[in-house]
Amino acid sequence: MIVALAGGVGAARFIEGLVRVHPREKITIIVNTGDDIELYGLHISPDIDIITYTIAGIVDKKKGWGIEDDSFNFLNMLKNYGIDTWFNIGDRDLATHIIRTDFLRRGLTLSEATERLCKLLNLKVKILPMSNEKFQTRIITDRGNIHFQEYLVKRSSQDQVRDILFEGEKKAKPAPGVIESILNAELIIVCPSNPLVSIRTILSVDGIEKALKETKAKTISITPLIGGSPVKGPLDKLMKGMGLEVSSFSIANIYKDFIDAFVLDVTDRDLKEKIESLGIDVYVIDTLMKGLKEKIQIAENILRIGDELKREE
Amino acid sequence: MIVALAGGVGAARFIEGLVRVHPREKITIIVNTGDDIELYGLHISPDIDIITYTIAGIVDKKKGWGIEDDSFNFLNMLKNYGIDTWFNIGDRDLATHIIRTDFLRRGLTLSEATERLCKLLNLKVKILPMSNEKFQTRIITDRGNIHFQEYLVKRSSQDQVRDILFEGEKKAKPAPGVIESILNAELIIVCPSNPLVSIRTILSVDGIEKALKETKAKTISITPLIGGSPVKGPLDKLMKGMGLEVSSFSIANIYKDFIDAFVLDVTDRDLKEKIESLGIDVYVIDTLMKGLKEKIQIAENILRIGDELKREE
Repeated sequence: MIVALAGGVGAARFIEGLVRVHPREKITIIVNTGDDIELYGLHISPDIDIITYTIAGIVDKKKGWGIEDDSFNFLNMLKNYGIDTWFNIGDRDLATHIIRTDFLRRGLTLSEATERLCKLLNLKVKILPMSNEKFQTRIITDRGNIHFQEYLVKRSSQDQVRDILFEGEKKAKPAPGVIESILNAELIIVCPSNPLVSIRTILSVDGIEKALKETKAKTISITPLIGGSPVKGPLDKLMKGMGLEVSSFSIANIYKDFIDAFVLDVTDRDLKEKIESLGIDVYVIDTLMKGLKEKIQIAENILRIGDELKREE
Repeated sequence: MIVALAGGVGAARFIEGLVRVHPREKITIIVNTGDDIELYGLHISPDIDIITYTIAGIVDKKKGWGIEDDSFNFLNMLKNYGIDTWFNIGDRDLATHIIRTDFLRRGLTLSEATERLCKLLNLKVKILPMSNEKFQTRIITDRGNIHFQEYLVKRSSQDQVRDILFEGEKKAKPAPGVIESILNAELIIVCPSNPLVSIRTILSVDGIEKALKETKAKTISITPLIGGSPVKGPLDKLMKGMGLEVSSFSIANIYKDFIDAFVLDVTDRDLKEKIESLGIDVYVIDTLMKGLKEKIQIAENILRIGDELKREE
């Protein structure tokens, strides 16, 4: 069983390749829920949806989120009602939020709701929310303490970042299956996701980082930086805001206590030795995922690295 | 103040004319909520929505319900999820259900939620649900006891009707303003709606029929039958199922204890004397509402009849 720790778009792009080179039934994805938000009474789990839609083959490929060929008439009507519509929700996408919210109101946990939705889409891959408890990533900016989605979407990541807070962090327990899947994994992959607001949220849930340290499985993380910059998203702004150098070295440093190998992009190969000095194996490959072909190649590379690490034991 | 008792499509067609010949601020519409249904965790009030959309000028004119130029991608995605989608909900229409449900979950009553939605659409007309309590029109058919919307939409009114039950009838109190508006009205209009499942539901709410008998306002009902047949909907089937003759006489007979005048269609003018024998004034006009012109003409006729009735006092 391969276990992947995942945020949204970056992780989904990698997983799109992974599901083509490894049996879906043998993939478990632990997904960040710190970005979850309730809007208009609906429970929205952006990262779970991005991963689900991508594996189901219905994601809007251009944007990397939402469903392809979607319409936005629900939002248009909200505008008619004079209601603020800063968060994009397509009409097809809305079906997911409505069904999930209905499941939750009927007493299902987020895990159970996610499992049902995945089954309805015949996903076969197991998707686990990191936690069923309320957990909210808040960004402390020069304009105040705001929800991560407000920072990212409503404010277009334009505010000065001062800190990142995890609300609910102390109470959040890992969702059923999370710890077990880490402990029983054959290989663990930290997807090319935002380390500060996607992976660190997962790590902050009680017991998850400990399990990652204890597991016998090899753990490989894939850099989300190419040429020292994020392919997408505000990772550079968040890192700067947290006083971190924007580099794969900083990221390896965050992960160093539980990863065995760090996969660096060819454009950043000069950091290889510096990261190795942290006691981590470093592999240099082309991590830019232009199309499906590259995604499959990267996934194959990661599986190959996993095999190498095992043989080295 | 004019008070109208209303169901869905038939009433809305008449009201479309009424709002053009009488100040909107002086119109209160008491709307049937027996057709309300919860689907996917959303509170849907079909008749309130039809009336609201019609007055707001956004109704789908061809169908008489829903919003014009709507898309159905939410429903398409539900189908992808393998979920039953017998009830038509457009993507724009969905905004109303979501906002209403959110209001209700936050503790607002249906009246308050309706008032807010009407205000957001700048409706000016006052729309009152007949009751804020749960009230459900059930049709007893040869296939069992089903929700009215299931009978009408899912089963296309094809089942043999044996009885009509009002679930919640005994507990339902009139919504705030309903009794007061009836008692203080200058004119009351029973819209050309289904007497059995739209108007009788309203009458069955505790105190409403009593207020209609006590009010000093003249009450005029408009027949929903033309040439002895309903313009739209399953009224004939429901009447037959209840052992009633399908005719305006049967309808006048249901209303006889609280109406002053019955407006009959020209095609049924031979029933005039028979209905007058019930002690009701009968007016014969062309009630077919082809376009806006006819709707305005009928509304003008009704106001004229109201004036005549007052002068006769």
